[in-house]
Amino acid sequence: MKAAVITKPHGPFEFVDRPIPTPGPGQVVLKTKACGICHTDAVVKDNLWGLPYPRVPGHEVIGAVHAVGAGVKAPFNTVGKVFGVGWVGASCGECTNCVKGFRHKCALRVFTGINTDGGLSEYVLANASALVEIPDGMDPAETAPLLCAGFTMFGALRDYGLQPGSFVGIQGIGGLGSLGISMARNMGFRTVAVSTSDSKKDFALSLGAHHFVSTGAGTGVDQINAATGGNGLDAVIITAPFADAVEALLPAMAFRGVVVIVALLDRKLTIDPGMLLTKSIRIAFEIVGAAHQNKECVQFCGAFGIKPLIERFPFDKVGEAYDRMITNKVRFRSVVVFE
Amino acid sequence: MKAAVITKPHGPFEFVDRPIPTPGPGQVVLKTKACGICHTDAVVKDNLWGLPYPRVPGHEVIGAVHAVGAGVKAPFNTVGKVFGVGWVGASCGECTNCVKGFRHKCALRVFTGINTDGGLSEYVLANASALVEIPDGMDPAETAPLLCAGFTMFGALRDYGLQPGSFVGIQGIGGLGSLGISMARNMGFRTVAVSTSDSKKDFALSLGAHHFVSTGAGTGVDQINAATGGNGLDAVIITAPFADAVEALLPAMAFRGVVVIVALLDRKLTIDPGMLLTKSIRIAFEIVGAAHQNKECVQFCGAFGIKPLIERFPFDKVGEAYDRMITNKVRFRSVVVFE
Amino acid sequence: MKAAVITKPHGPFEFVDRPIPTPGPGQVVLKTKACGICHTDAVVKDNLWGLPYPRVPGHEVIGAVHAVGAGVKAPFNTVGKVFGVGWVGASCGECTNCVKGFRHKCALRVFTGINTDGGLSEYVLANASALVEIPDGMDPAETAPLLCAGFTMFGALRDYGLQPGSFVGIQGIGGLGSLGISMARNMGFRTVAVSTSDSKKDFALSLGAHHFVSTGAGTGVDQINAATGGNGLDAVIITAPFADAVEALLPAMAFRGVVVIVALLDRKLTIDPGMLLTKSIRIAFEIVGAAHQNKECVQFCGAFGIKPLIERFPFDKVGEAYDRMITNKVRFRSVVVFE
Amino acid sequence: MKAAVITKPHGPFEFVDRPIPTPGPGQVVLKTKACGICHTDAVVKDNLWGLPYPRVPGHEVIGAVHAVGAGVKAPFNTVGKVFGVGWVGASCGECTNCVKGFRHKCALRVFTGINTDGGLSEYVLANASALVEIPDGMDPAETAPLLCAGFTMFGALRDYGLQPGSFVGIQGIGGLGSLGISMARNMGFRTVAVSTSDSKKDFALSLGAHHFVSTGAGTGVDQINAATGGNGLDAVIITAPFADAVEALLPAMAFRGVVVIVALLDRKLTIDPGMLLTKSIRIAFEIVGAAHQNKECVQFCGAFGIKPLIERFPFDKVGEAYDRMITNKVRFRSVVVFE
Repeated sequence: MKAAVITKPHGPFEFVDRPIPTPGPGQVVLKTKACGICHTDAVVKDNLWGLPYPRVPGHEVIGAVHAVGAGVKAPFNTVGKVFGVGWVGASCGECTNCVKGFRHKCALRVFTGINTDGGLSEYVLANASALVEIPDGMDPAETAPLLCAGFTMFGALRDYGLQPGSFVGIQGIGGLGSLGISMARNMGFRTVAVSTSDSKKDFALSLGAHHFVSTGAGTGVDQINAATGGNGLDAVIITAPFADAVEALLPAMAFRGVVVIVALLDRKLTIDPGMLLTKSIRIAFEIVGAAHQNKECVQFCGAFGIKPLIERFPFDKVGEAYDRMITNKVRFRSVVVFE
Repeated sequence: MKAAVITKPHGPFEFVDRPIPTPGPGQVVLKTKACGICHTDAVVKDNLWGLPYPRVPGHEVIGAVHAVGAGVKAPFNTVGKVFGVGWVGASCGECTNCVKGFRHKCALRVFTGINTDGGLSEYVLANASALVEIPDGMDPAETAPLLCAGFTMFGALRDYGLQPGSFVGIQGIGGLGSLGISMARNMGFRTVAVSTSDSKKDFALSLGAHHFVSTGAGTGVDQINAATGGNGLDAVIITAPFADAVEALLPAMAFRGVVVIVALLDRKLTIDPGMLLTKSIRIAFEIVGAAHQNKECVQFCGAFGIKPLIERFPFDKVGEAYDRMITNKVRFRSVVVFE
Repeated sequence: MKAAVITKPHGPFEFVDRPIPTPGPGQVVLKTKACGICHTDAVVKDNLWGLPYPRVPGHEVIGAVHAVGAGVKAPFNTVGKVFGVGWVGASCGECTNCVKGFRHKCALRVFTGINTDGGLSEYVLANASALVEIPDGMDPAETAPLLCAGFTMFGALRDYGLQPGSFVGIQGIGGLGSLGISMARNMGFRTVAVSTSDSKKDFALSLGAHHFVSTGAGTGVDQINAATGGNGLDAVIITAPFADAVEALLPAMAFRGVVVIVALLDRKLTIDPGMLLTKSIRIAFEIVGAAHQNKECVQFCGAFGIKPLIERFPFDKVGEAYDRMITNKVRFRSVVVFE
Repeated sequence: MKAAVITKPHGPFEFVDRPIPTPGPGQVVLKTKACGICHTDAVVKDNLWGLPYPRVPGHEVIGAVHAVGAGVKAPFNTVGKVFGVGWVGASCGECTNCVKGFRHKCALRVFTGINTDGGLSEYVLANASALVEIPDGMDPAETAPLLCAGFTMFGALRDYGLQPGSFVGIQGIGGLGSLGISMARNMGFRTVAVSTSDSKKDFALSLGAHHFVSTGAGTGVDQINAATGGNGLDAVIITAPFADAVEALLPAMAFRGVVVIVALLDRKLTIDPGMLLTKSIRIAFEIVGAAHQNKECVQFCGAFGIKPLIERFPFDKVGEAYDRMITNKVRFRSVVVFE
């Protein structure tokens, strides 16, 4: 089988020929159908965490079961059945976090395409505990980005106590933000798209945003207050990596509003507690989900017809797929599609 | 002004001429634009609670401010501005329930059209504390039913901890149920319409239901399990008044599912705790909202384009409007429209 | 080893000699230190569920690791370390409920002492997934009842959204109720003990109840209203198996109060939805917890010095221990102590 | 009547003779029994917010009704009955926040002793909407500090979703922290006192702390991990005004732990989102409560015997009371007691 490998820090993707893996106990091998390219693939590409090389990146994987290891149970043991694998590459089911249902914080710390080989390969070895059931009829390429970008937005929107009718800002209208607008609208939130540029207005409204606010010529605070009838944002999901923007939005929050940061910011946040105090604002940070969380996200997107906007690349163009992503040219997620 | 009055138990609507009321402190007089007819108008019509006569029914009122009493503050003191009035005719802002935000349970117990004259009248005296702001551009006739039927469903769907993607059953597809399907879909719930008759399938799906289950030839439990992938219903909202149907649906609930009853059942419920125990099912009962809750519902419906299906009647056909409602012929809410 | 076995429906405990079990993969053998006798042991004793015989009852087990099977990980693989085993005899960590953290509803449905041999035996075979860590220094006999009776009350008090200062009724002052009073007081609830008999007043107050209400000469509703300053009970935990008593307490509930039933009632509940509607009362049913839930309960009781009141019996008096429990003579939990 | 007035920035308390106020509609005059001195009295003393002079400080007031204005209802209209007044000097019951139950964020923004005359006076004019019922038998001097310091801790501990058994850190063992330890213990939290100095260990344990951690020779992170069995703190309440200390404690938080800041920090917080991300830590800021919230706090403290540690000063020593507070010499709250 052919795999796209990074062999050294800052090196290019190199295609190597490897034997198809053999699944061990509790594992399957998937024949890859699609794999999304995510900004966190830069962890490997740019050696951000100092992990050993070579490594096959890719943690937004869709594939069909090719071989089944010992002890794998239904529904994961059916050859040909399609599953996904996201960032969380295993959940032990026994550690402190797993027993509480926080399987994305499993003590095993297996991260697909980061410290184990990922989806930019014709076949992928995967732990059954990481497999995400994919409903019939969902397009693999359009589903792959749901496994990381998708749940990151889904979880941010679902898990902070928002209610139908809440005013929810989506700050940054890229790969995550565009998914977030669609999701927020379909979850019954009054959705406010926030961007630095007016040029994204029509696009944001076409995705379902109720309001569009440009921060190009100011902070956007007045526009947000106008759009929300003076309420302010009950939540804002920060998808763009600029601490300046986060700090500028704080005065636009509603009483007891929550700021959920899912971007890796360009600098530390500097927060004046006095300002937050006035409105009892809460700040939270959380990304990625384990298999059952990804399943919930994929099922939601399937039931509500939510799809990421993607550009498709054949496997031999993986380098180009990465480059368009890392230079922010892609509209909006790069996905490598296997034959 | 002309008012439609019930003068004795089981009597017809009689049109009487009365002077336009004068607003006292904290009150306004609205010039009525529309008033919905609700099943609870039978409380007056059929003397269910033994209140004194005559009485003008009608607690789904939309009107424009005609006169303003002393001490009424913005935004309620603008002549010509449109407001609604629902079941809760006053909230004192001082009693134990009001201070906690439970203004629909205010100790004053003023119920519009029940123990104070309601909306089936050309002008209506209303307490400012009961006024619901209506966004510009919403049709009065299509908004009126949101003030009782609407919030009853909105609250049932919003206030029990459901999450985007939850499986939510709407049992009974009449005036409340049809609104509930639209709302549930727009709130991001995987919506299962449950009816005794297959004949409502296309209608339910057209409103946004993901699944339709008929209980005509059984309990519907197997179909619900199939529709929900074995999960069962995370919530079911009971809008039809049959205790049999509630009891039959209990085995279709998910673990920790909640049964929210908004209908006045035909008999007491008989519940086997052992069965509930298995799934930790919860049962809850709650209806109607105060002004700020109705405002949240109306704004939600406005933002998401949710409208009740109504039949419009001129004021002089109020008796017919009531009759079609009480005989379940109306599709689906009767609304009296004042020219 | 000696085991106390029920060999046929309604039969007595018979002592049999058996070989000490050998732990399979993922299992340990515990040398029993103590085992509580619970009312649900009647499931075996009286053949309530039609399971095969012989069977060793006992699902409130404390023991020290005697032998360790393959694949058992720390901390469960240390010979001599003390653990508990409760009603839930295994959690697979993979099924739908387990992945969400609802391990007490594991699809395996292994129930200690019910469909697998339990703790009334000198040695007990246990799945590592069911082991409850016991803090050093806790007395085995006083800890055993926490593993079923204890968590049933702990979960009822913890998992329904109560807040410090909530008014919480504990109805029935037996084994569960006496634990519940201590727990409720230590959780910061204003605790109202409710009993049919004045004779338990001093006892209830000595356990920490703020108020005592006798329902001997009435329903107790007026007394509860007086004790709670007109608020009513934010929650009541029903530990006595009488449906009459549940129905009588409904008018004493606070707005949005919750009735948590942990007893197996003597008949079905008959509920007038109209009455519940007035106060938006919720009814819920839930008992027992999996290993990590029991661990939380045991740690809580350890940290706050909460102990059940028990009568100790040597192993050869297990029949007497059961008889005093089933006839409600024991004050308040029977525990068999192995030394 | 005699009142203690600040007449200019940084000026001393001056005693002036004034007529007893006459209550307007909705108001009462209280004859003062006790008034706590709080750090926020420095707002007036040191002109922090630029408000006009003269001003009588004091927002922890206990007094008996002396005169009743028009329209004041029961229970507030009984001469001689004892009430408290805290920081929030009025709640209108009509604004957006009031209708939702957030009466401490009322649009009126009346702050006792800050922009209206407070409790360091023999008689105090108060709005009925700000009156806190005080249970019989509670000592006025020991109750006064509950009206600001008390609720600040009570709300921080109650309103962030903690559960019985949660590990809760109380950082800083002064007036707020000592109350917080008592409250946390009585709410069923496993309480970890965190101080810069070992000297407070015995005191903290005597108040009910389960664990004491000194950060004198380090960050305390290792000690907290040891005390919590590796869990970390589910919440920490920050009562000492040092941003360094807040930042140092972040690594000691549990997964999804919440940092609640109730102190006015000495500088802005600088937060590395990456570190928070690892544990999904949330940061929140909230202080003071309206009348009904203070009532809940006072009732809780009454029911559980929680009292602040105070030093009592006669009215003519109010300057000394303030000085001991502002120099951190008082153990732990200064309270002025009237005759």
